[in-house]
Amino acid sequence: MDGFSFTAEIRVRFAETDAQGIAHHSNYIVWFEVARVAYLAQFREGYRSIQADGVEVLVTDMAVRFVAPARFDDVLTVGVRCTGLKGARFRFEYAVERDGTLIVDGHTGHACVNAQTFAPTRTPGWLVEAIASLQG
Amino acid sequence: MDGFSFTAEIRVRFAETDAQGIAHHSNYIVWFEVARVAYLAQFREGYRSIQADGVEVLVTDMAVRFVAPARFDDVLTVGVRCTGLKGARFRFEYAVERDGTLIVDGHTGHACVNAQTFAPTRTPGWLVEAIASLQG
Amino acid sequence: MDGFSFTAEIRVRFAETDAQGIAHHSNYIVWFEVARVAYLAQFREGYRSIQADGVEVLVTDMAVRFVAPARFDDVLTVGVRCTGLKGARFRFEYAVERDGTLIVDGHTGHACVNAQTFAPTRTPGWLVEAIASLQG
Amino acid sequence: MDGFSFTAEIRVRFAETDAQGIAHHSNYIVWFEVARVAYLAQFREGYRSIQADGVEVLVTDMAVRFVAPARFDDVLTVGVRCTGLKGARFRFEYAVERDGTLIVDGHTGHACVNAQTFAPTRTPGWLVEAIASLQG
Repeated sequence: MDGFSFTAEIRVRFAETDAQGIAHHSNYIVWFEVARVAYLAQFREGYRSIQADGVEVLVTDMAVRFVAPARFDDVLTVGVRCTGLKGARFRFEYAVERDGTLIVDGHTGHACVNAQTFAPTRTPGWLVEAIASLQG
Repeated sequence: MDGFSFTAEIRVRFAETDAQGIAHHSNYIVWFEVARVAYLAQFREGYRSIQADGVEVLVTDMAVRFVAPARFDDVLTVGVRCTGLKGARFRFEYAVERDGTLIVDGHTGHACVNAQTFAPTRTPGWLVEAIASLQG
Repeated sequence: MDGFSFTAEIRVRFAETDAQGIAHHSNYIVWFEVARVAYLAQFREGYRSIQADGVEVLVTDMAVRFVAPARFDDVLTVGVRCTGLKGARFRFEYAVERDGTLIVDGHTGHACVNAQTFAPTRTPGWLVEAIASLQG
Repeated sequence: MDGFSFTAEIRVRFAETDAQGIAHHSNYIVWFEVARVAYLAQFREGYRSIQADGVEVLVTDMAVRFVAPARFDDVLTVGVRCTGLKGARFRFEYAVERDGTLIVDGHTGHACVNAQTFAPTRTPGWLVEAIASLQG
């Protein structure tokens, strides 16, 4: 997938379809998260390591553009990359393809917060370095 | 609704439908929970009071029987009652009606646990008394 | 709510929370839809009338900005308005408040398609007029 | 897995957790369905072949027993088997294990209906034979 060195695979569940006979648009947000978690799992223990550092990652904004609908049992490839790491914030970008054709793209913005107080806190250093090394 | 002194109202969301054009069967579990939370909200601060006592309520078992499907935008009445309070355990029973006709019924079994350790703990006394007074 | 003449009310379900103790961000997409359906219900039979015209409304894009998290049992007010009606396309804008404070805003873009072929088709005339009259 | 010749693998998504820090109990119904669809995919085109025959499969009842909770990122093995095929009806049974230990079991009952009228109709012959051959 052009521009994405990491991808996750999703098969559309029947429970994810709606009465239009297509995957409900809210599911892409969940699939983005599945891809994001898989991406982070490349580093240490992944998201669990972030939590072990007493940090939670919040979503600050998200946007999705729909080109074509997905249907039950479709196998989708979700490309994911991390960009714009700066202080407490970073951003993930996604592209969803079916049979090599783009059907959806989007991004999510994130901020690290202290897991107890939800106050902003810097992205853990090991994660910054790990992502930088991958994207470099 | 016969046998149920407390009811909650649910309107079927489009996101809750599936490609069969009906409400996906997993949603009844969520609607049972909505009704159960509304039922408990009759007492003190409801579920939040249980949590304030350091107690979490787990689901130990559940069963649902489907008589007829629900569809997008249907308004459903969910009858709920609490039975079988004993030690750490109790049970909720549900009936779902549309226009006065039963479409689904079911139950959920519950156990109180310590919120930190997940070890079984007695149902808070105030809740036992409150439920007993209502069902009596 | 400033700038919104129509609002819908949402109570955060326990099933909508996640392990961060807040409402999972994907749910706002569902709540936007609930508000949109309620908005359209002001006209004729609402979304069912659109479907009766052989038209389905797809989501072409969406964006959400998160200011503060929502938690279990929070009562949220979702303001919704329709803008940019043109040919087959229109756009909904949303603001979510808790106790009079903005916590989330966003928009969804839509396109009308033929329910059988999914080919673009003009927004039904009665809906254009109805929305125009409301927003005017 | 004892008694189950077919299994599917599930990884708990973050969106599937709730504020108790565990997978919300409604998700097992979705995971049962994922396992059921994978099971049926062993035969012809699976569920799509059933739909191609003009048949839809409804859920008539379901029951779940919870032994231990699942948590974010847990990898679960879902055993699934089909029993009790008779006329329009059949039943699926499930066991969910984590690291070889049972955490949940349950079943779903099903009835075949005409996709247009939702009237009961016999289970397609090829499916009856396929399942019988597997379970035999």
